[in-house]
Amino acid sequence: MTLTSVSTGRLLPSDPATRRVAEELYRLMADLPILSPHGHVDPGMLATDRPFRDPATLLIRDDHYVTRLLHADGVDLASLAIGQEEISDSEAREIWRLFCERWHLFAGTASGYWLRSTLEDVFGMERLPGDGDPDTLFDALSEALSADDMRPRALLERFDIEVLATTDDPLDPLHAHQALAADPDVRTVVRPTFRPDAYLDPTGAGWNDRVERLVATVDRDGYQGYLDGLRESRRRFVAQGATSADFGVLSAVTAEIDPSHAAALFDRARKGELSSGEAELFRAHMLFESARMSTEDGLVMTIHAGVFRNHHSPTFDAFGPDRGHDLPVATRFVEPLRPLLQRFGTAEGFHLVLFTVDETTFSRELAPLAGFYPSVFIGAPWWFLDAPDSAARFRAATVETAGFYRGSGFIDDTRAFLSIPARHDMARRTDAAYLARLVSEQRLRIAEAERIAVDLHDAIPRRAFKL
Amino acid sequence: MTLTSVSTGRLLPSDPATRRVAEELYRLMADLPILSPHGHVDPGMLATDRPFRDPATLLIRDDHYVTRLLHADGVDLASLAIGQEEISDSEAREIWRLFCERWHLFAGTASGYWLRSTLEDVFGMERLPGDGDPDTLFDALSEALSADDMRPRALLERFDIEVLATTDDPLDPLHAHQALAADPDVRTVVRPTFRPDAYLDPTGAGWNDRVERLVATVDRDGYQGYLDGLRESRRRFVAQGATSADFGVLSAVTAEIDPSHAAALFDRARKGELSSGEAELFRAHMLFESARMSTEDGLVMTIHAGVFRNHHSPTFDAFGPDRGHDLPVATRFVEPLRPLLQRFGTAEGFHLVLFTVDETTFSRELAPLAGFYPSVFIGAPWWFLDAPDSAARFRAATVETAGFYRGSGFIDDTRAFLSIPARHDMARRTDAAYLARLVSEQRLRIAEAERIAVDLHDAIPRRAFKL
Amino acid sequence: MTLTSVSTGRLLPSDPATRRVAEELYRLMADLPILSPHGHVDPGMLATDRPFRDPATLLIRDDHYVTRLLHADGVDLASLAIGQEEISDSEAREIWRLFCERWHLFAGTASGYWLRSTLEDVFGMERLPGDGDPDTLFDALSEALSADDMRPRALLERFDIEVLATTDDPLDPLHAHQALAADPDVRTVVRPTFRPDAYLDPTGAGWNDRVERLVATVDRDGYQGYLDGLRESRRRFVAQGATSADFGVLSAVTAEIDPSHAAALFDRARKGELSSGEAELFRAHMLFESARMSTEDGLVMTIHAGVFRNHHSPTFDAFGPDRGHDLPVATRFVEPLRPLLQRFGTAEGFHLVLFTVDETTFSRELAPLAGFYPSVFIGAPWWFLDAPDSAARFRAATVETAGFYRGSGFIDDTRAFLSIPARHDMARRTDAAYLARLVSEQRLRIAEAERIAVDLHDAIPRRAFKL
Repeated sequence: MTLTSVSTGRLLPSDPATRRVAEELYRLMADLPILSPHGHVDPGMLATDRPFRDPATLLIRDDHYVTRLLHADGVDLASLAIGQEEISDSEAREIWRLFCERWHLFAGTASGYWLRSTLEDVFGMERLPGDGDPDTLFDALSEALSADDMRPRALLERFDIEVLATTDDPLDPLHAHQALAADPDVRTVVRPTFRPDAYLDPTGAGWNDRVERLVATVDRDGYQGYLDGLRESRRRFVAQGATSADFGVLSAVTAEIDPSHAAALFDRARKGELSSGEAELFRAHMLFESARMSTEDGLVMTIHAGVFRNHHSPTFDAFGPDRGHDLPVATRFVEPLRPLLQRFGTAEGFHLVLFTVDETTFSRELAPLAGFYPSVFIGAPWWFLDAPDSAARFRAATVETAGFYRGSGFIDDTRAFLSIPARHDMARRTDAAYLARLVSEQRLRIAEAERIAVDLHDAIPRRAFKL
Repeated sequence: MTLTSVSTGRLLPSDPATRRVAEELYRLMADLPILSPHGHVDPGMLATDRPFRDPATLLIRDDHYVTRLLHADGVDLASLAIGQEEISDSEAREIWRLFCERWHLFAGTASGYWLRSTLEDVFGMERLPGDGDPDTLFDALSEALSADDMRPRALLERFDIEVLATTDDPLDPLHAHQALAADPDVRTVVRPTFRPDAYLDPTGAGWNDRVERLVATVDRDGYQGYLDGLRESRRRFVAQGATSADFGVLSAVTAEIDPSHAAALFDRARKGELSSGEAELFRAHMLFESARMSTEDGLVMTIHAGVFRNHHSPTFDAFGPDRGHDLPVATRFVEPLRPLLQRFGTAEGFHLVLFTVDETTFSRELAPLAGFYPSVFIGAPWWFLDAPDSAARFRAATVETAGFYRGSGFIDDTRAFLSIPARHDMARRTDAAYLARLVSEQRLRIAEAERIAVDLHDAIPRRAFKL
Repeated sequence: MTLTSVSTGRLLPSDPATRRVAEELYRLMADLPILSPHGHVDPGMLATDRPFRDPATLLIRDDHYVTRLLHADGVDLASLAIGQEEISDSEAREIWRLFCERWHLFAGTASGYWLRSTLEDVFGMERLPGDGDPDTLFDALSEALSADDMRPRALLERFDIEVLATTDDPLDPLHAHQALAADPDVRTVVRPTFRPDAYLDPTGAGWNDRVERLVATVDRDGYQGYLDGLRESRRRFVAQGATSADFGVLSAVTAEIDPSHAAALFDRARKGELSSGEAELFRAHMLFESARMSTEDGLVMTIHAGVFRNHHSPTFDAFGPDRGHDLPVATRFVEPLRPLLQRFGTAEGFHLVLFTVDETTFSRELAPLAGFYPSVFIGAPWWFLDAPDSAARFRAATVETAGFYRGSGFIDDTRAFLSIPARHDMARRTDAAYLARLVSEQRLRIAEAERIAVDLHDAIPRRAFKL
């Protein structure tokens, strides 16, 4: 990473004695290569290595964490060129101005933090969007983006990313991954991640068509063809370097039902005949079956639970998914996951990483589960919780019950490529601050804290994600 | 406000460097006029401007946050003259003594904080109730209360309250508000707030009678008369300066049902024939309809959700409502509010302020909702959460997701008139402390923090509550 | 207690000014005798006073909070001699080595904290398990354990434990308690605690047999004999010094049903005919009846709610209960306890202590309940929450609503006898830190904080548990 020279005190504790310890611990982590075992960077962008278009498209239009806060302030998504294929120079400049006027809305937010760090540490800017004269900043950023050292692969190198996992559809041919793996100039290992949600929820739009195409990839049909298709796709992902399979679900409920029952549900699902209760049972069953597949092929199973997708239908209808109105709901793990854990919780080599946006589950459920089951790892604070105060709460809520070694290690989970170093740096700083406090409170010796600091951003994610 | 000279370090961070920043930020806020857009002060008290009776009645008997803690210590509510019309001097003195003996019970509590600040900063006392000799303190306070500068309007002026909203019944004639508005000596704008709960819940005691009287105010009868009566009353409140309508509900569930269905439910409700499920549906529908009315007349909609009222029936039967056993329950917003937000979430000018006493919803639901919907504002930490540590948790739980500008601004929500400046001062101090930490952690520049500090207690509540 | 000379700054705040206050407050508490009104120490161990066997059995094998973290790291419970009657010297040494290799897993955890304090403060070791050369440490600890001053009664004296409550089966003859009470050399008052769970849940294994034996202790049979048996056993416990009855339940739901209905449920339960809904109703009723019995015989009622026991059946089948997979679930109190509190919430002398492992209930439900009902006390942070950061969150979540005097006082809840002083010392330090912060923030005067500091570990537990 390349941020060490900047703002050494950022996010570190204000008490001078504790800060000194934190700085020492941070220095041990600051230059470790980035391991990014879960995220949403477009592999095609890396494969083609085209220059980024303009600052407004790159940093605003295409980042729905940014556009959602503009929308909340009354900005129409259409005026941000969302859903628009082409964007003119004047539109881009207009979006940039509109954003700069509202820079104060981002103060204290995670997005504001990433943007500021991106501008200061990646672009080297001293002026920020709130400092007035948006046009000059737009021009400076545009010029910077036209340079070769700001193209995707150059940044991949500069960010010192050792491993970067993308998130991919089971039927994706993975051509970009093949091209990157074949290119000797790309030192980063770019791994696909198997993400089958759209094939597991029979109530999702387009499920039937997707399943049709999935079954067509194998010899059998019906429910067995469906399972074979999933297995075959997973096999193909593993061959291309995948180490994990990811599941985004509203509820973590799992169920073991007998194969003939499952086959009957599948057949009726294909005819659109499932009740909502049956659809839920089918989803619960497929989460269970996916765990079984992981015990067979070794893919780490990651579950991102508790998100109500596309809350505002008019926005979804006009602009499609990922527009900032996926919203967290109260989540449970202990009871819903019991069928899965009864069967696979102690299975050799099975890894189950649990992510939540309901913080209450950290101390109540995730740390206790991970403190017993060798398969369970506590997912790093994710999404809305991927921010300094939230990260501090995460450590305080989990370490006392499960220690440091039952966590997944940090994931950036982002499609905002330029923010990746800032995100990992934030995690290292908040970890340094937390460890320094434990040292200051005589709960850890400094040598223990030093080992943990490095392990948190090296050994721990490597083990949890089988990198 | 008038508290700046007292205890400048109160509630500010102990680290010297951070404290200096906090003090600087606090100074910017300390003298701003008070905006109180939601509370429960009796407008009649201001209109008549009679002197307060005695310290025990004013500070103890009539504050159920104080009496509940005495009750929890085994003091019978009857011995506090609760429910009693007249209170003798000796009774008042006896209540005061009983309270002073138990002053330690209030240590660390919000009520203890307001009481101490009221005694020190409003009355100028140096002795506190726990310092022994309750009679001398009682006499000193009694004497102070008899002076003209301690009468309600003098305090209104001294507290520098620019706007004070009361909470009023839809059939209230608003005479006190008219008198205050007509009096050129009253510089405070005293606004009524439309609070129709007792007209919306068909299972509430007296609902039928109230609805009868409401319908009698308009030409039509039946369900349409009911809606017209509500609309007409809202119109009257708007004319008298109201800017918001307030809803206190156990659950935030909303529903859109067709008018004929609603009318049928209404007719059966009037006959007492609704099942509990139908009553819930009717309440959910009326919350939805109330949002629609807000889109028509512009009243800000505030929802205080998640409170189980009158938990202990024997106490309710003996002493009536508001006796300290209204208790919070687990609350949800994302799914229950969806029908309302689907329809009105992006409606022009619609403001929906969501208050909770279930802290888990701050990071999980309220900040994400307010970070997308332009109508949704995160209610300030309310009621049990209106206290220094809770306020700090509120900022840490919401700002990273939604920033500072999606909050409602502080509300004091109190009927304890003398505590109003202490409450706003507390909010300013905790905000100064939070902002100073962000500056110290290099997450905000000082200039940014300065702007936010002022906006939090000026522009932000003005906008959210349309003051 | 004997830990004052060690590590005076441990767990205290890092800010120098606040630390000085915290140190002063801690000094007032440090030498108070230990009151342990709820725990799981084996009274037979104290009665026989046999030396402890070896360090691995004592500190690892028999502490399932330790073994669960080893299990989570992939260590088979069988390799820890769990469920094994005899353990050879070489097995003990092997377990010790395996544990020392994994000492880093315990960094930051509650168990790691107790172990370190036990080794440093009770055994006087300077080397820790992570410092290499496990055999030398094993030998040193083994030698220490063979000395007379490390036998149970010597430690009871050295730890300065004034009261120690155990947890006992209603049919336990309480011989060990009788022997200890009769021995003039035992200065500690060792009190039994009535723990009837296995007699109240008709779905529990062995319920029918236990009830059979219980009913056989009295003259009547059927449901009345069952109630009489419980009452008679409680009477016997009271006679032996018990002051509390403890209930461990998944849900805190209570119900009042009429006696004939209860008798009918009981009769059908004895025949194994209850549906799961009826079994839940019976449990809810028996919690209600147990409260009634407390109003009769004065036993403090403690409820430990919200735990899903024995989550992983294969582990339960192989190794029995208490193996580290009892897991917390989301818990509610306000609505479930209402029937009980309607009836007994203000009953003279009734004490109800509510423990939770769902932290969300502290500010939302427990503090508000205890802030009104004189019977309700907020249980100290329990089990997974009995650790420094969790204890700090507990105070911050409850004091602002309910003050300091509505808590139960600290309980150690442990069967790890040697960790008892470290646990009480931790609670005193975290309380000192919290109080010092309130002083530093000018929310408490130092004299107030001094009184509270002592009361928290003396008057408050004595009152709540009727010691």
